[in-house]
Formats: sequence, structure tokens, C-alpha cells
Amino acid sequence: MQLASFRSILTRYKAVFLDSYGVLKNHMGLIPKVEETLQFIRDNNQYLCVLTNDASRSPDQLAANFQKNGLTGIEADEIISSGMMARQFLEYKIRKGGSVAYLGTENSAQYILQAKLRGVPVSQVKEEDDVQAMVFLDDEGFDWNTDINKTLNLLRTKNIPTIVANTDSIYPVSQNDVSLATGSIAKLVENIVNKRFIHFGKPDSQMFMHAFERMNKLASIDRSEILMVGDTLHTDILGGNKFGIDTALVLSGNTRKDKVNLLIRSSGIIPNYICESIVN
Amino acid sequence: MQLASFRSILTRYKAVFLDSYGVLKNHMGLIPKVEETLQFIRDNNQYLCVLTNDASRSPDQLAANFQKNGLTGIEADEIISSGMMARQFLEYKIRKGGSVAYLGTENSAQYILQAKLRGVPVSQVKEEDDVQAMVFLDDEGFDWNTDINKTLNLLRTKNIPTIVANTDSIYPVSQNDVSLATGSIAKLVENIVNKRFIHFGKPDSQMFMHAFERMNKLASIDRSEILMVGDTLHTDILGGNKFGIDTALVLSGNTRKDKVNLLIRSSGIIPNYICESIVN
Amino acid sequence: MQLASFRSILTRYKAVFLDSYGVLKNHMGLIPKVEETLQFIRDNNQYLCVLTNDASRSPDQLAANFQKNGLTGIEADEIISSGMMARQFLEYKIRKGGSVAYLGTENSAQYILQAKLRGVPVSQVKEEDDVQAMVFLDDEGFDWNTDINKTLNLLRTKNIPTIVANTDSIYPVSQNDVSLATGSIAKLVENIVNKRFIHFGKPDSQMFMHAFERMNKLASIDRSEILMVGDTLHTDILGGNKFGIDTALVLSGNTRKDKVNLLIRSSGIIPNYICESIVN
Amino acid sequence: MQLASFRSILTRYKAVFLDSYGVLKNHMGLIPKVEETLQFIRDNNQYLCVLTNDASRSPDQLAANFQKNGLTGIEADEIISSGMMARQFLEYKIRKGGSVAYLGTENSAQYILQAKLRGVPVSQVKEEDDVQAMVFLDDEGFDWNTDINKTLNLLRTKNIPTIVANTDSIYPVSQNDVSLATGSIAKLVENIVNKRFIHFGKPDSQMFMHAFERMNKLASIDRSEILMVGDTLHTDILGGNKFGIDTALVLSGNTRKDKVNLLIRSSGIIPNYICESIVN
Repeated sequence: MQLASFRSILTRYKAVFLDSYGVLKNHMGLIPKVEETLQFIRDNNQYLCVLTNDASRSPDQLAANFQKNGLTGIEADEIISSGMMARQFLEYKIRKGGSVAYLGTENSAQYILQAKLRGVPVSQVKEEDDVQAMVFLDDEGFDWNTDINKTLNLLRTKNIPTIVANTDSIYPVSQNDVSLATGSIAKLVENIVNKRFIHFGKPDSQMFMHAFERMNKLASIDRSEILMVGDTLHTDILGGNKFGIDTALVLSGNTRKDKVNLLIRSSGIIPNYICESIVN
Repeated sequence: MQLASFRSILTRYKAVFLDSYGVLKNHMGLIPKVEETLQFIRDNNQYLCVLTNDASRSPDQLAANFQKNGLTGIEADEIISSGMMARQFLEYKIRKGGSVAYLGTENSAQYILQAKLRGVPVSQVKEEDDVQAMVFLDDEGFDWNTDINKTLNLLRTKNIPTIVANTDSIYPVSQNDVSLATGSIAKLVENIVNKRFIHFGKPDSQMFMHAFERMNKLASIDRSEILMVGDTLHTDILGGNKFGIDTALVLSGNTRKDKVNLLIRSSGIIPNYICESIVN
Repeated sequence: MQLASFRSILTRYKAVFLDSYGVLKNHMGLIPKVEETLQFIRDNNQYLCVLTNDASRSPDQLAANFQKNGLTGIEADEIISSGMMARQFLEYKIRKGGSVAYLGTENSAQYILQAKLRGVPVSQVKEEDDVQAMVFLDDEGFDWNTDINKTLNLLRTKNIPTIVANTDSIYPVSQNDVSLATGSIAKLVENIVNKRFIHFGKPDSQMFMHAFERMNKLASIDRSEILMVGDTLHTDILGGNKFGIDTALVLSGNTRKDKVNLLIRSSGIIPNYICESIVN
Repeated sequence: MQLASFRSILTRYKAVFLDSYGVLKNHMGLIPKVEETLQFIRDNNQYLCVLTNDASRSPDQLAANFQKNGLTGIEADEIISSGMMARQFLEYKIRKGGSVAYLGTENSAQYILQAKLRGVPVSQVKEEDDVQAMVFLDDEGFDWNTDINKTLNLLRTKNIPTIVANTDSIYPVSQNDVSLATGSIAKLVENIVNKRFIHFGKPDSQMFMHAFERMNKLASIDRSEILMVGDTLHTDILGGNKFGIDTALVLSGNTRKDKVNLLIRSSGIIPNYICESIVN
């Protein structure tokens, strides 16, 4: 597949869904010049939604984080995260009064669990606690040496719904290196306890659906008028393809130029376009 | 969990999503007296949608099949099938001109592939054919002794998107016996070729989303006003839970009364209600 | 890794373990000139054992099969098959009096089950039969359209040991094409019933151990004096490496020259030598 | 299955293979009165071998550890560990001169790697190091927060053989709680890098084979004269069954009395006997 200029394909659409990590920012911060593309989108009266498998922060914090890094113009209500999906599920499905155990930062817990549910870090769960659910939120904020085992033992004894709010396996931490993400830690535990966890995040249709509904409150937008842009075939492109919208794979994140054709051929996940980044 | 009377919970909702096999019908035909429940739903001006992982027939044929068996009053446009999802994907993503190889009955192919795509049973694919995609449609309509191997060899050589239009593993064929369904055959091949197939069907949110959008064209219905009814925890109940609607598990299909509590506890998939069937 | 001449490395060893399919023969029959290499081995007073994951025939039949194809000089007692391992297990572990259900040819059953155990093809198992065990023997000899489902239902209801006598996933049937082998069919069923089957065959140490013990009855041979030759990294080479003997991968079967370096690097299974075949 | 008295079955055999953890000792130390059973074995001139999936200590240290806890009479050369198997493999397969990266304690590394191979804890591996292999040795001795990621990145970039010297998933740390063992950590990494690691430990036949060969240097002992005793179906009993010896499952470790029948039925792994422990 030939590389396309992002600007040239962008103009064919009325709205764009953007992945965050690997598209707008990377381990070094904002990807240079993405703010120009954002400005272009605004100037052309196009609609925008950020779809991110990040469950560690609230949309307000994610928006503030963009701004702090020099990307103004993304509103909190233009951000849909897997954390939001998990949050809605917990709000709806877990009866008030019990507590919810979590692996992650206190900040991520505050967002996901809100005021109605009492969040307890796994390290602080006591035997007598009435734990209603378990949530995997983030790979930071706890001691892997002790808390993964605690989680394992909690789930061996209590039959409670277990939510994985970020299904990513790994994420890049430098040019060459990656780090295990929440999804991997959850999978490790899931395999041992042999129970079915509930996963939120691309490629599942939910976030696409939320973004679509939200956008259609602003203007009437058809699926054919939306472009999904992401750096990962298995989450962004597969999810966009299944949702029925056009997809563009960028090479500014997880997928490297020297491997892209091989990956597309071997996975069978085919984007409509491949672009260097959203900048060119 | 206590068993609830289906009628008593049904009245709390404005709309109901129903699984087909194990809820409305089983291997012997229509489950006795379900037509009375359907009538009750109509009399109460409730809305209805059938969500089925059946890709072997068109909605028109599925509706006709219900009628033939004594269940009048389900319109074709009240039926959402995984086959429809696969059909839309193929229509949108596969360029016209090539052919699409399939494992299934000619009838299922006619529906999924429509007129624009030339469907070719795997057994008839020739080397020189320009095969654009592969679709697993049904466990019938081909010779397992020869055609599974043909499919395997086709996918080893051609890097084409492969769609699994019915993700069920097994389905009951008698009181005690089951049969391997399309999902199992696809999984067998998927593991050997080590590529990522594209699966359509519950528990994925897509079908729930389609049903929700369709219903909201008729009346304004909120998620809290919908009840999902199914016989399988991993598809119907998990799908309904993730979509954010209440769920009722019936014991008239895949899930047996003597195993239900164990299955709920071990899977962590918890329905709001358990009922013997939709009849009581 | 550089290609080595098989003759040149062969002379460094006192004994050689040979895989059969892909080393001595292929889908077309005997690989041309292997009989010369066999003669060379005999002339040099080297010891030989054939280690094959073929459970469809007895060693006598396998030896006769070699002879029929022009390879004289391999005695039945120089052949160790996964079928033999399965046979010994059944003989030892299953009490006489019951019957053993199998998927495979009658010939393979006659060998594996001997006279003491009453073998019944899955298609003929009746409800009242006292089935003691289930054995997957071969991918031929039964109707895939009906008998895989019968096996599935048998194993869903009866808690009996299930033996897989040939763990190969696929085997080549022509230059380019493969066929699903017993191992794949067993895996399909194993995943659905969610029970642990008992597998016999390389890379498991058992067959290497039997060959080693058998050879040492003829002469004192140390592990360092044995070379394992095979065409498949995951069975022959991994098995030989784990058993502690040198290994040579040949490119006359499953592993193609254009893919070998990639496969070795990606699998981490490293043979001591790579040769075109045992002929050069 | 009925419970049998261990003493009564023990006398039927000439030799016994014993698992260590869950049979001789547990998280609290030596299981009370096992030294009496050991004395009984000695008094009856029976032969003994301890087969353990423990790779964290040398046989000398394991023997000393028994003695320190009150169990005299187990010689170092009566202990066969998965660590020994890994050690032999590394000694044989890794060329001198390079270094071997490991996750585990320095003590476990000293044993496995000996003097010829330079062992480097993953945390200390530098880019310029010539790392020849990676070994997972123990779940202790490193910081899970940092070193699992380091291992992941090392294996993503270098194509080196990776050895898992202890394949246990979990081990009990108290009456009710378990801890993740080396096998789980290795599996986590193995799945992400998508390469094949080399595993040593029961149920693989290797350790049984070593014990059998070693014993037969002392006296002529046939397989029918050996009893394998263990607390885990998937490693001890399956391994013993496949090796062709009788097996006894004890309920003093991993397998609880209230679950044993269910586990045997659902796994299909059937011991010849079930005993409370080796004490009764």
C-alpha cells in the first residue's frame, strides 16, 4: 500500500476519530506540529473525537494534559476513553454500599469509581471488606512485587465481576522499548483464575458508538463521513473497520514503516490509507 | 440467585431484545407457548428486537421461519443477525470485481454476499480466481472431509480478510447433544494460519447498537428501558451487560438449571434476572 | 546459519535418530537417494532409529512400508512411533473389560489397542457401552461430518482419559498444500470440552528415551554420540535439544529454505546444523 | 475414588519418586511426621528420589534445606530438580564466552549457570553485552516493577533461546493464599514476544527419566516397581502416568480434599491412589 498525505485524505471527511498515543502524542510529548493539523480541522469546520484506551485519567485531565503539552482546542467532551466505558458499567451494574478493589493510581480510581462506590487499592483490601468488583485501571500506582499476588488471591476466593479498563498489552516508553500495560497484567491473572474478565476498549464497538452518538447531537453525520485514525492495527483499525467507517493507519506510533506491509498482510486488518503521521 | 417470573419482570421495560435459539425456539421447533409471551409484548405496546448469531439465513427467511413454526408477529426488520453485520462489512470493505470464498450453504451466501460480490464455495475455488475475502457462514453446506483443508490452504497462501459471521462454538441438537458450529471450525483454521479473523456476533456491541438505533427510529427509548433476554452467558448476557442494559438469563436453552449458579459464579457474568423461560 | 553437508556431519556420530516424514519420505514417496545415505550409515556401523509421530500403523507396517518404497534395511525394532507410546500407556492404564473409542482407521486401532482392549470406532459407540478411554489416532478412517461431533458429545458426558496418539497439527500433501492432522482435530475438541488430553509424540522426551534405551541394549552409546535429524523445529529439533543431543534440521520437508532463518530466529529453537536433506 | 492408606500401598513398590512441596514440606516447613515415612522407606530397603520443579537451589542446598527442617536421610544425589535439567541444557547448548541473563536470585543463578557461563541479572544487562540466552529461574530476587519489562525488551530485540527452569504457575504461601511462580511470569512474557520458550519440569518425562536411570545404577528396577507421589495432577500425576509408573495423589498440598474428585473428573488425569498424605 502506498503512503498517502494525511491532509489530502482528511478533507474528504466531515468528522475524524483520533487515537491519542501514537497519533497526537508519544513518550516524548506532543508529536511535533499536530497542533497545526488540529487547527486545520477546526478551520474546516470538521468534527473531532479522541478515542483512547487510556483509563488512568478523566476526560478533563486528558484534555488538560493535551493543553499543558501545547495542544489547545480539544475539549473534555471530545474525548472518549475506555475508562469512561468502565465507569458507566460500574455505575450501572454495581450496587452502592460495597467497595470496589482496584489496581492503579488513586487518580484513576477517583475517576472510574466516583463518589458512589468506595474504591480500595488492592493493597488495602481487608478480609472483612464487602468487595463488589475488581478493576484493573493502570500499570502504575501499586507494587507489582506484592499487589498482583494480592489481586490473584482476592479473585480466587471472591466471585466478583472483574473489569479491565484498558486492554492494551504494551505501550512504547522510548524509541525502542515498551512497557507492560494493564491489559497484560490482567491477562496474567485472568488465565490463572480461569474466569472471564470484562474488557473495555478498542477494537470493541462501544467507544466508536459513543463518539458517533455524541457527534450526532451536534450535527447529522453519517458513518461514511467519518475517518478513524490510529497507530495500531488490532485496536484502532480493526475497531474502525468493524464499526463501518474508513480508517487511516499512521506510522508515528506502534506500527513501524519497515513492518507495516508485513503486519497488514499477516493480520488481514486492512486500513483504507496509510500515512506517515497526521502532520504531513 | 432466585428464579424470577418472566412476565413480572417484562412489564418493567419498554423494549426487549430477544436471543432466538434457546429463547424462542430450540432443536424441536418453537418453544411451547412463546407465542403467548409475544402477544403479551404486543398487547402492552412494548418494542421488540431479535438478536441472533445466526448467519445462515436472511432476516426475511428468519421471519418466515418463525411464522412457519407458529410464531407470527415478528417482522423481518425486527431481526438483527450477525450475518447482517458481516454483510454490511463485506459490502463496504470489499471492492467489487473479485470473488468471495465461503464455507456454508448457498442460501447463506446469497444473503451475505448479495449481487455485487461473486460468492464461490470453497470447494469450487480455482487457483486463478481473484479471491478478495473468505467468509465462514455455516457449519452445513460443505464436506468437512475436504473443504476445511481447502480453506486452510487458501488462507495459507492468500492474505485476504477472513470473516467469521457466526461466532458460536457449539449449538444444541437434542436434549443432550451438541454440534460444532461455524465458530469452532473458524477457530481451528485461525489457530493454524495464525492470522486474525474478523468476528461478528454477540457479545460484541455492534448488534445491540443496531437494534438500539433501529428502535429509536420508532420511539425514544433509553438504555434503562431495555431488557436483553438470552440463554448464553458469554454472548447474550455479557453483551447486554457491556452495552449497559439489564439482562435476563433463561434456562430454556444452553444453560441448564443445575449448572447455572456455578456458571455465573465461575464466569463472573451476572444477569439481573434468571428465569425458567420467557413463558412463565 | 550456513548449510552443512549431511554426509560430513553424519560421520561425527555413532548413532542417528531420524524423523520419517520430510526426512526419509514425503507425499510423493521415498525422497530420492535416501537409500544411499542409509547404506552409508550401515557401512559405517552406525546405529539408527526412526522416531515418528505417526500413530496410524504398527512398526512392522511402517518398516514394510519403507521396504515397499525401496528403502530396505530399516527393521521394525528400529522404529519408535508415538503410536507405540500411546499403546503402552493404554495397555498399562486401562483396565481390561471395557472398550476404547477411537477416531482413525481400523488398522491403526488394531495396533494401538491390541487384543486385550476392545476398540470401537466412535461412529459405532452405543450409549450402553462401557467406554474406558478415547483415542485420537488418525485423520482418516472416519467421516468428519458426523464423527467429530459424536466424539465431542461422548467426551462431554463421559469423564474418561483421552489420548492423542499423534500430535502433529498439519502435514504436507503436495508441494504447496497441507492437510489437518489428528493433532488439530483433537485440539478442536479439547478446547470445547475444556479437559486435559494426554499427548504422545515429539517434542516430548519419551520417544527419545525409548530409542536411547533400545540402542544402549546393542552398544554403549552416549548422548553426545547421537544426532537427531528432522524437518520440523517444534517437534524434532526442540525434542532433540531438550533430550540433550545434537540436532540437524533438513529442508526436505516442513521447513522451507526461504523461511528457515526467520523461523529459527522467531522460535528460538536452534539446531546444531541445517542441511538441504540427508542426501547431500 | 476411595482414600488409601499410604503405608499400605507403599509396601507394594521397590522405589518411590516423591514431589517435594506439598508432599514432604509446605509453606510452614516440614509436613509433620514425614520423617517417619522416610525412615520406613529406608528400613524397608526401598529406593527413593525427590523430583521437584524447584530451580531456585542446587540439590546440595535442597538436601541441606531438608536436613535443617528435620528431614535427614535425603542425599543430594537423590534429588532431581528442573533446575538440573535447565543446567545441563545450558551447559551443553550455550557456547562459552557469552553471558546468560536471568530473572531470579543470585543463588539460583550460581547453580544453574556454573562457572563456565557468566550469569547477569536482567537488571544489570547492558546493551553491549553479548547475551547468549535468557533464563527464568525464580519469582524472587528481582524487582517485578522494573525487571519484567527489561526482560520483555531484551527478548524483543535479541533472538536468543529462552529457558524456563520452573514451570509452576503458582505455589501456596499459606493455608489459603498462593503466589505467582516463575512459570506465570515467563508465560506473560512468552505470549507478548510470541516466541517459543524452552520449559523444563514435570510433567515432561525428562526428570522421571533421569531418576529412573540414576536408580538403575544402584539396582535393577522396573517401571512397574516404582510409585510416583505428588500433590498436583497436572505435573506429578500426569508426568508419572505418561512415564508409565503408578501414581499416588496426596491431599497435603495443592489439591484439596473437597475438590479432588471434581478435579480428577474434569482433567481426566487419574492417579492409581489418593492418600491424605504420605504420613497415614
